[in-house]
Amino acid sequence: MLETIFLYEIVGTAILTLLGCGVVANVLLNKTNGNGSDGIVIFFGWGLAVFCAVYVAYETGAHINPAVTLGLLVGPATEYAPGIPINAVTTAAYFAAELIGAWLGATVCYLAYKKHYDATEDASSILATFSTGPAIPSYGWNLVTEIIGTFVLVFVIIMFGHTPSGLGPLAVALLVVSIGASLGGPTGYAINPARDLGPRIAHALLPIKHKGTNNWSYAWVPILGPLIGSVLAGLAAYVY
Amino acid sequence: MLETIFLYEIVGTAILTLLGCGVVANVLLNKTNGNGSDGIVIFFGWGLAVFCAVYVAYETGAHINPAVTLGLLVGPATEYAPGIPINAVTTAAYFAAELIGAWLGATVCYLAYKKHYDATEDASSILATFSTGPAIPSYGWNLVTEIIGTFVLVFVIIMFGHTPSGLGPLAVALLVVSIGASLGGPTGYAINPARDLGPRIAHALLPIKHKGTNNWSYAWVPILGPLIGSVLAGLAAYVY
Amino acid sequence: MLETIFLYEIVGTAILTLLGCGVVANVLLNKTNGNGSDGIVIFFGWGLAVFCAVYVAYETGAHINPAVTLGLLVGPATEYAPGIPINAVTTAAYFAAELIGAWLGATVCYLAYKKHYDATEDASSILATFSTGPAIPSYGWNLVTEIIGTFVLVFVIIMFGHTPSGLGPLAVALLVVSIGASLGGPTGYAINPARDLGPRIAHALLPIKHKGTNNWSYAWVPILGPLIGSVLAGLAAYVY
Amino acid sequence: MLETIFLYEIVGTAILTLLGCGVVANVLLNKTNGNGSDGIVIFFGWGLAVFCAVYVAYETGAHINPAVTLGLLVGPATEYAPGIPINAVTTAAYFAAELIGAWLGATVCYLAYKKHYDATEDASSILATFSTGPAIPSYGWNLVTEIIGTFVLVFVIIMFGHTPSGLGPLAVALLVVSIGASLGGPTGYAINPARDLGPRIAHALLPIKHKGTNNWSYAWVPILGPLIGSVLAGLAAYVY
Repeated sequence: MLETIFLYEIVGTAILTLLGCGVVANVLLNKTNGNGSDGIVIFFGWGLAVFCAVYVAYETGAHINPAVTLGLLVGPATEYAPGIPINAVTTAAYFAAELIGAWLGATVCYLAYKKHYDATEDASSILATFSTGPAIPSYGWNLVTEIIGTFVLVFVIIMFGHTPSGLGPLAVALLVVSIGASLGGPTGYAINPARDLGPRIAHALLPIKHKGTNNWSYAWVPILGPLIGSVLAGLAAYVY
Repeated sequence: MLETIFLYEIVGTAILTLLGCGVVANVLLNKTNGNGSDGIVIFFGWGLAVFCAVYVAYETGAHINPAVTLGLLVGPATEYAPGIPINAVTTAAYFAAELIGAWLGATVCYLAYKKHYDATEDASSILATFSTGPAIPSYGWNLVTEIIGTFVLVFVIIMFGHTPSGLGPLAVALLVVSIGASLGGPTGYAINPARDLGPRIAHALLPIKHKGTNNWSYAWVPILGPLIGSVLAGLAAYVY
Repeated sequence: MLETIFLYEIVGTAILTLLGCGVVANVLLNKTNGNGSDGIVIFFGWGLAVFCAVYVAYETGAHINPAVTLGLLVGPATEYAPGIPINAVTTAAYFAAELIGAWLGATVCYLAYKKHYDATEDASSILATFSTGPAIPSYGWNLVTEIIGTFVLVFVIIMFGHTPSGLGPLAVALLVVSIGASLGGPTGYAINPARDLGPRIAHALLPIKHKGTNNWSYAWVPILGPLIGSVLAGLAAYVY
Repeated sequence: MLETIFLYEIVGTAILTLLGCGVVANVLLNKTNGNGSDGIVIFFGWGLAVFCAVYVAYETGAHINPAVTLGLLVGPATEYAPGIPINAVTTAAYFAAELIGAWLGATVCYLAYKKHYDATEDASSILATFSTGPAIPSYGWNLVTEIIGTFVLVFVIIMFGHTPSGLGPLAVALLVVSIGASLGGPTGYAINPARDLGPRIAHALLPIKHKGTNNWSYAWVPILGPLIGSVLAGLAAYVY
């Protein structure tokens, strides 16, 4: 069973950050076809990255996000996915697989955009294609924003179970488009610790030509905020 | 049953205005990631706010809008939601819950964008993230626009019942995207008295740094217009 | 049965042009919230106008377009909608209802945007919110473009029947978004004689402040082109 | 059976490149209604081109792409479509039909935009409406990008089979929107040898007024890259 978790969550989360970091690269890096595109491209790009990733990781419930794993752990769910129990070992496996996958996807994204990374001199744009950062730095308020965004993510995902539709993975994709458009303004909506930390590690390791800081001093915010938000959402689910 | 109405309609309408006011904040407030994004972001942002809110409020029929409640009251429906009868008490509960939720969501949105509210000096942009206002002030014609927009909203929602699909809450979300893009030009498409009044009260109460007028003199238009439009739609439904 | 055709096709086509002309008004008229929005707003605006209109006109098969009616007449279909036979009388009723509805919707759109029509002095922008026109005038090539666009519309609609999905009216809405984005460049994609002629009549009749020409000399192109395209699509359907 | 493959795959792939090349023409050619539209129009335009094409080619599994055919050949599938076996003859028929269709669609697109091709003097914009090209020329890295993009396309398509939904052809359409937005930056995402070669042949043959180079020296990249990517995806599918 651990093999299954690793296989599906690594590949699924890799697809997530390959496509998610990819859309930011397309908009921000020099000389790309999508350079300077409108914000709607980012919001749909990340939403559809989730869409694809969920299909790929279907077998393990497509968490692709430690906040989702934690929300299910705290909330009233009895399994992580059909046949996968909730316990310390499976939880650790999900966390590890999500982080490895997120790192892997960002690394592959770097290969896809190699010549454009070489052609981009602005180190902050380069970092922004990997990890999130605050538009106005403020640890406290940035944390509040990430808590609110992740609460909405995990709470609405839990609510999806009550209203059957034929949308399948499109529902969570549209939820992520919504959170990006509506709550992504201040911090770039990590709402997923692996999505932020994995690519940040990739940024630190890769031999990027014009690389600047990894901004490790901010890195705890998009980890702690989503974890708090998901715990709150898991607890709120008991009321329903 | 009243507890159920309050629980679902407050939380649902709070999600609506958190995400709806949020997308306007992302586009209009200073220094956000989404600052200056195209109108399409607003239209999809509000539509997907409805998408999420409807999942959250499913148990009570997801009115999240006094105009919808009134349209069902006037029209041929026999229940507000499975198990919830149409009477004076339930109607009042819906209205109250929708208003409280709309106020709550706008207040949480303020917290998510706190630093950007502080960094924005244009009071009319700040008010626009809470409530609607006329692009060209004219009580009469602004009322006409809100009546037409809300008529389309409530009438098409009633029509959804005749054509089964697997879209679930996505159908009403796309309807709201459509009304925003097509009929939102003159008044910013309140089409929901609670969506406008709740955030306006939040705007009045919050200690916003560069706050200007609450524009109370206009506040009756996005209340009366939607109520008239929904009554007309409820009556039109008898023909079908 | 004729009553049914008139009721559903008039109201459905009115919703189509109310929302369709509305989105162009939002983008083109002075001082609207959507003024100057990107082309994507127009493409989704018209597509979702179809989405809403199809729900409203479900009972009569939601033609809302004489080209669709003609394509079904020519093609292998045996009914216009469940219970509605294909004959001269029903065909005439569809055509008349679609034209009346298209005129009605454009007239209501004028009311919704009244103050913005008053505030707009460019007569060609005003006409563009009602009817289509060629980006580069050329009767022959404009006709070719309308034939190709309408062929795609009617042919793909007929093909929808072979692949069941849960999308319902969303499928045809996305088809119209596609045609607008891909084939709307030269002529503004009438692809529907009623959608063009009805609003053009409304434009001629309404007391618009800064009204210019109705451009009657072009009006036959968005009528004849769609009719030819739909006949070709109807004939092509026999091969499948 | 070969007749069926030719009929459906030619017409389906023709619809794909008619609408796909069309959206680029709308954005890039002079004096069109969509001239200068945002990148989101291109991404949704190509995605919805796939949407329409898949409905048209449903009977033969809607490959409309030699990379999909090859991915199925290499992967664990046992048929190309219900009733169509995987063998050398059917494979050759798919390849031929896809190429012919792609050429045909681009040629019809030229007719739809004839006056705008005449009015456009920039030869590289004209070529871009037919075929893809590198934003930064580098055979090696351009190949890497096409391999990655096509791997995602074919791998996720294979994964669609594991998660039932009511989306039908919309799922693959959204996948293509995603790949365009996220991985289209460096090479314009051919991810389909026929989509690139067929229109390039059309460009070479058509009497375009201001025609420049066909860029044959690059033409092997969007053929070989997608074929490698699809083989890798087909092999990866055995793990699942």
